[in-house]
Amino acid sequence: MQFGYFDDARKEYVITTPATPYPWINYLGSKDFFSLISNTGGGYSFYKDAKLRRITRFRYNNVPLDLGGGRYYYINDGKEVWSPGYAPVKKELERYECRHGMGYTKITGEKNHIETEITFFVPLDFNGEVHKVVIKNTGNSNKNITLFSFIEWCLWNALDDQTNFQRNLNTGEVEIEGSVIYHKTEYKERRDHYAFFSVNAPTAGFDSDRESFLGTYNGFQNPDAVLEGKSKNSVADGWSPIASHSLELSLDPGETREYVFILGYVENDLEDKWKLKNVINKTKAYRMMEEFSTAEKADGALKKLADYWEDLLSGYTLVSRDEKLNRMVNIWNQYQCMVTFNLSRSASYFESGIGRGMGFRDSNQDLLGFLHQVPDRARERIIDLASTQLEDGGAYHQYQPLTKRGNDEVGGNFNDDPLWLILAVAAYVKETGDCGILNVSTPYDNDESKAAPLADHLKRAFDHVIHNLGPHGLPLIGRADWNDCLNLNCFSLEPGESFQTTTSKDGRVAESVMIAGMFVYIGKEYAALMKKTGNETEGLRAEKEVHEMEEIIMKYGYDGEWFLRAYDDFGRKVGSRECKEGRIFIESQGLCIMGGLGLSDGKAVNALDAVEERLGTKYGLVLNNPAFTKYYVEYGEISTYPEGYKENAGIFCHNNAWIMCAEAVVGRGDKAFDYYTRIAPAYTEEYSEIHRMEPYVYSQMIAGKDAKRFGEAKNSWLTGTASWNFVAITQYILGIKPDYDGILIDPAIPKEWDTYQVTRKFRGDIYRITVNNPNHVSKGIERMSVDGKEIVSAVIPFAGDGRVHEVIVTMG
Amino acid sequence: MQFGYFDDARKEYVITTPATPYPWINYLGSKDFFSLISNTGGGYSFYKDAKLRRITRFRYNNVPLDLGGGRYYYINDGKEVWSPGYAPVKKELERYECRHGMGYTKITGEKNHIETEITFFVPLDFNGEVHKVVIKNTGNSNKNITLFSFIEWCLWNALDDQTNFQRNLNTGEVEIEGSVIYHKTEYKERRDHYAFFSVNAPTAGFDSDRESFLGTYNGFQNPDAVLEGKSKNSVADGWSPIASHSLELSLDPGETREYVFILGYVENDLEDKWKLKNVINKTKAYRMMEEFSTAEKADGALKKLADYWEDLLSGYTLVSRDEKLNRMVNIWNQYQCMVTFNLSRSASYFESGIGRGMGFRDSNQDLLGFLHQVPDRARERIIDLASTQLEDGGAYHQYQPLTKRGNDEVGGNFNDDPLWLILAVAAYVKETGDCGILNVSTPYDNDESKAAPLADHLKRAFDHVIHNLGPHGLPLIGRADWNDCLNLNCFSLEPGESFQTTTSKDGRVAESVMIAGMFVYIGKEYAALMKKTGNETEGLRAEKEVHEMEEIIMKYGYDGEWFLRAYDDFGRKVGSRECKEGRIFIESQGLCIMGGLGLSDGKAVNALDAVEERLGTKYGLVLNNPAFTKYYVEYGEISTYPEGYKENAGIFCHNNAWIMCAEAVVGRGDKAFDYYTRIAPAYTEEYSEIHRMEPYVYSQMIAGKDAKRFGEAKNSWLTGTASWNFVAITQYILGIKPDYDGILIDPAIPKEWDTYQVTRKFRGDIYRITVNNPNHVSKGIERMSVDGKEIVSAVIPFAGDGRVHEVIVTMG
Repeated sequence: MQFGYFDDARKEYVITTPATPYPWINYLGSKDFFSLISNTGGGYSFYKDAKLRRITRFRYNNVPLDLGGGRYYYINDGKEVWSPGYAPVKKELERYECRHGMGYTKITGEKNHIETEITFFVPLDFNGEVHKVVIKNTGNSNKNITLFSFIEWCLWNALDDQTNFQRNLNTGEVEIEGSVIYHKTEYKERRDHYAFFSVNAPTAGFDSDRESFLGTYNGFQNPDAVLEGKSKNSVADGWSPIASHSLELSLDPGETREYVFILGYVENDLEDKWKLKNVINKTKAYRMMEEFSTAEKADGALKKLADYWEDLLSGYTLVSRDEKLNRMVNIWNQYQCMVTFNLSRSASYFESGIGRGMGFRDSNQDLLGFLHQVPDRARERIIDLASTQLEDGGAYHQYQPLTKRGNDEVGGNFNDDPLWLILAVAAYVKETGDCGILNVSTPYDNDESKAAPLADHLKRAFDHVIHNLGPHGLPLIGRADWNDCLNLNCFSLEPGESFQTTTSKDGRVAESVMIAGMFVYIGKEYAALMKKTGNETEGLRAEKEVHEMEEIIMKYGYDGEWFLRAYDDFGRKVGSRECKEGRIFIESQGLCIMGGLGLSDGKAVNALDAVEERLGTKYGLVLNNPAFTKYYVEYGEISTYPEGYKENAGIFCHNNAWIMCAEAVVGRGDKAFDYYTRIAPAYTEEYSEIHRMEPYVYSQMIAGKDAKRFGEAKNSWLTGTASWNFVAITQYILGIKPDYDGILIDPAIPKEWDTYQVTRKFRGDIYRITVNNPNHVSKGIERMSVDGKEIVSAVIPFAGDGRVHEVIVTMG
Repeated sequence: MQFGYFDDARKEYVITTPATPYPWINYLGSKDFFSLISNTGGGYSFYKDAKLRRITRFRYNNVPLDLGGGRYYYINDGKEVWSPGYAPVKKELERYECRHGMGYTKITGEKNHIETEITFFVPLDFNGEVHKVVIKNTGNSNKNITLFSFIEWCLWNALDDQTNFQRNLNTGEVEIEGSVIYHKTEYKERRDHYAFFSVNAPTAGFDSDRESFLGTYNGFQNPDAVLEGKSKNSVADGWSPIASHSLELSLDPGETREYVFILGYVENDLEDKWKLKNVINKTKAYRMMEEFSTAEKADGALKKLADYWEDLLSGYTLVSRDEKLNRMVNIWNQYQCMVTFNLSRSASYFESGIGRGMGFRDSNQDLLGFLHQVPDRARERIIDLASTQLEDGGAYHQYQPLTKRGNDEVGGNFNDDPLWLILAVAAYVKETGDCGILNVSTPYDNDESKAAPLADHLKRAFDHVIHNLGPHGLPLIGRADWNDCLNLNCFSLEPGESFQTTTSKDGRVAESVMIAGMFVYIGKEYAALMKKTGNETEGLRAEKEVHEMEEIIMKYGYDGEWFLRAYDDFGRKVGSRECKEGRIFIESQGLCIMGGLGLSDGKAVNALDAVEERLGTKYGLVLNNPAFTKYYVEYGEISTYPEGYKENAGIFCHNNAWIMCAEAVVGRGDKAFDYYTRIAPAYTEEYSEIHRMEPYVYSQMIAGKDAKRFGEAKNSWLTGTASWNFVAITQYILGIKPDYDGILIDPAIPKEWDTYQVTRKFRGDIYRITVNNPNHVSKGIERMSVDGKEIVSAVIPFAGDGRVHEVIVTMG
């Protein structure tokens, strides 16, 4: 069952009912100012950091769902009150439509012959959210209506805002000037920033005190001011500051009126904070309002935003016969990758914005999905991340985006972390050819006095693994590897203790076959990068280490039919035929095979067959099987989840991509693509009532076959699933892989495919690659030509002439 | 304007409309299981610790106000749906009444000839909340109705519950057996506790999954199941587990039906957690349900609860001609003191239950108010508190009640903290005569190996002050003294930095005259206690130190007309005529005069006149004047509040009591009592629309004269105001002071009073004290007789015979 449809020409998903199975959201913003917005206008905004600099208030886990805050509009037409975006009044509209596009959301509602279209977006290089409101009288008689706006201020720190009421209810302060409400809580003291909500027209009234606007016991659905049709002109003084305007309109039949509302954020220099005592300096706000003083100016910015996205998405475009595949590759998967670039795992409808900053592992992986879109910003991100690396090669597990400093709040000592940095840097250099990044002087532990070239960071990352080997010579797992919930050194018995920060064991026994596989896969990347950049000795050393690890894995890490997952603190196998529960895990199969293990002797294929048999479901591959039915103190958090959810045998979409890649590596394009379609959102659209999450972006997890809610997704948007599935489909399946000297062509596709075309921008050139499959194979290239000339290598040599090159690939 | 009335005979406040100016709440529970309940059933429950062991979910800062969770009941009579307690449906009732009593709340609602009376209480020694529901058909025809119950489970840790959704939405688990819904999230793993919601009757159906019960987008006002009149029989599986029953009733005219619902909490032994694999052992829950299997049993427990409170409140009873005064002294002030004993500052409608545990300073002061009611538990509390003292005499600023261990989360090094322990112990010994407590071996820093007799703790507390003196010989203030917001060593410029945990200075300059006054006041108590318990040498030493401090205060701490407040880190005066803002502070005036300073030379009276002139308002005394109009980095948080709120010139009710005491000390009973009536809640009842908070308990703060909302209170219930005002009225004004050898009689009353009678239980005896004032003086005793015999001392000698003694006091 669908609740909307894709409008690919406009790059939009069009939602046709407010009654989606869950609020379906979009993100606004591309640099510093970000917003979450649901299909009925719910959500919130923040500047850089969703915890420390929250601009509007939002209530997670609200009842009613998604009525915990948003940008709300109300119409009182003298007889009836409703919201043109359905929420918060939730009175049935005669027409409703929400278009989530690239960086904007447009909600249209019509009732009583009044049509309202509100376009929400954050203009490029603008610290604010613009609402362009168009109201039209579609009836035959004159309409006199009052339009109310509403947003609620958050007192900046989102955690404090929801806990420290004995202070917070006394601190709220605003200023009102003309049609603008300025929020300046704590500006008097240590803050150099304020926010404002403006409209480019004279108002009939305003409110800035929530209780005055709503009435003591009313909800957002039925504010006193709106019901009475008249603002109270309240000035907040503690309690809960808000911003609401009222505009009185008289519309002739057919007449249209346009308004621009701005929710803006301003930082002032400390010496320039005040105009007069306790009167803030508003110069920058005035400038922002001037920038969007008319609807035409807003339209201009929308056009620029569209051009920006057109350009971002043009780096990789696919024409295939599969419409769903095209929209995933060309639009939504790339869009989601950019959202993970901007947000990491901080703020979604499942991530409260206060728990996590930028993850080291997360952001390095995310980079694989967006670096072709914004290579310069990827470079900056790499240096930011590497700057939080520790001197021993390990890493803080995360950092706060506002400060860019590593913090230990969610634990450290995750032994896979450092390797992801190598993978990200190798991918970056392949994409850009910018070997110079290796020479960039980069601090350890954010300490400039401990700076060293980035290449040194990679070496220490690589060596961190070999400096931390366990009894079998496999890498010690540390706190956990990529699977945060496999806590082999934790042994926690205390309720509420964090599995990510508690350690009861010395950590010198439990080993991870997954990290071993990563070491082989990423170690080879490291060796190649070193050799490519003139450090032959280091390249050879790395190859030797990798080779040794390969032997150890095949000796101690393969269990007859598949790769083991780990050894626990007792030295016992995890993910083995010998286990009663958790007999097979997905991660080590994917990464070992991506590293090339078991290819020559059939062991890789055996492992993948076991994956299909034991982990396969119609909604994707579960993480492990059988699910854990009780708590294993020696395994930790993974066994705390009910069966079929999250890491305990849920369909964890991120690692599904590794199996797609592995299937591509062994040449089984049909399987690879089959797995792709099981979880790719466009393919889930038709059973949205089961899947529940947005059909245009990946979710972190889909409930597995052991779960009562099998097939139901959770935690959409902010997941490494986006980047890895983009890598899987574009590089491993469609087979267009950036490489040091050009683009490597190596498809692994369904046999039935005839042809497809990819246009790939690459270091300033454009390669128009047509892949033909006349013999209906999954893998293998018979011949290849560039600009009409046959080439012998599978690598399209980088031309560097800024021109368009026609590439014809014939499989066979 | 009133929103209810006092029913003193029943010891109840009766609220007659759901539209109170703010939710007016009550507390249930007396030992381990506690609940907050508003006048429409909102609120939540927890076991021991409001943060770590939250049982039901509640949303602070909810919109609509107070609809964020509670124990909800619904009636569907086939035609209409409403809530018998008004919320959450909020359909107008024909009759509504809420009676907040001693440890119970009874809400009665009538509509469509169905009368429902629900009594909520936590029985003594019972880990659960009982709801006795009585439904009566008051009409002339038969009624067929469905009654729905509803509570929502919190996933135990209240902070995690509102932040970590990517985990929490996957973990919820329940079991359903008969009419009982068991909440067992995380029981599988590390928890040894579960909760349940039961009813003593067969049900027509149940729900345990919130979304199934409500519908995806509905609120508590309009649950699908209730609107349809039929439970969905849903079994929670992640998302949000709840518990709801539905009961079908057919009632003849005049017929009454009674039910008992129980919200219970159970802990199992680790080896006894399970009945079968993944089936919890419910034996203890069965026992709890059996205990209240009938309404009669619930009535029996209610009677016991009433007896318990009757006994608790009988320790001090007043008969005066002022009805408001009687109800404050006899009922509500003592009741609030017990609530602060139980809750400290952890959980109210302003304290979210996750920010603070038990405060060292707070709980020691609270003790002054409740120790005559529960001396044994006061003793335990003293030892708990002293066990968190540090070896240098300082103290953790708070501890978590579940672990009883000190923690640093809200900072330490508040230099007034240790002195309050001395005051509490002295008061305890005076009340009980139990000098043995001084010999109790008590750990430092919760470390048994560092245990020493309690007397040693007091000595180190006393010496902590003289080990930390500043340039003038006055006590260094440390992080802050009693005024948490006067942060003289903080100098914070970073937004969001905690003023309580940030220190930029070495702290060797800024001094507190308030601590100096405390040192004199409490140091004299210490000296007397030492001498009384045979340690003459220590007593003399203490007196010498106190005397030296007195001289220093009068030399450096008095500013011509009043006592200074402090010296800042630059050595500049704070609270001086020389200051432009914050020229006079209340705290040092109160405590210095309570310590006896300035009595002989008129300086005390001068200071009190300055207090009246500069700090007095009709709603109480503001903390300082003039209010700070900008941020003073050298003063800290106090100057961050808008003018007139909180510590920045708000009426901070706690310290108003010190001025009452000081006025009593100088003999001005009229002034003392006048200040008492300005803030005592019973006297605020008539202007509840301004005051807004409950008219039966104190609030921490009332907006001061500089505030826009002058007279509006905030942060009701959990405040040291309760104990200090009880001390002020009962000991300083009514003048009945427990002392080592008996009861000291020393009233300071309004001259116009003729007579009053106090019945005081004291160490097993009962003293019926009649104070007559034929000459209409404020202070001074002409003669006094005990059991007909004149005595010369002002101290009623302790008889120790367990009998009633008649005391006649004639003032003059």
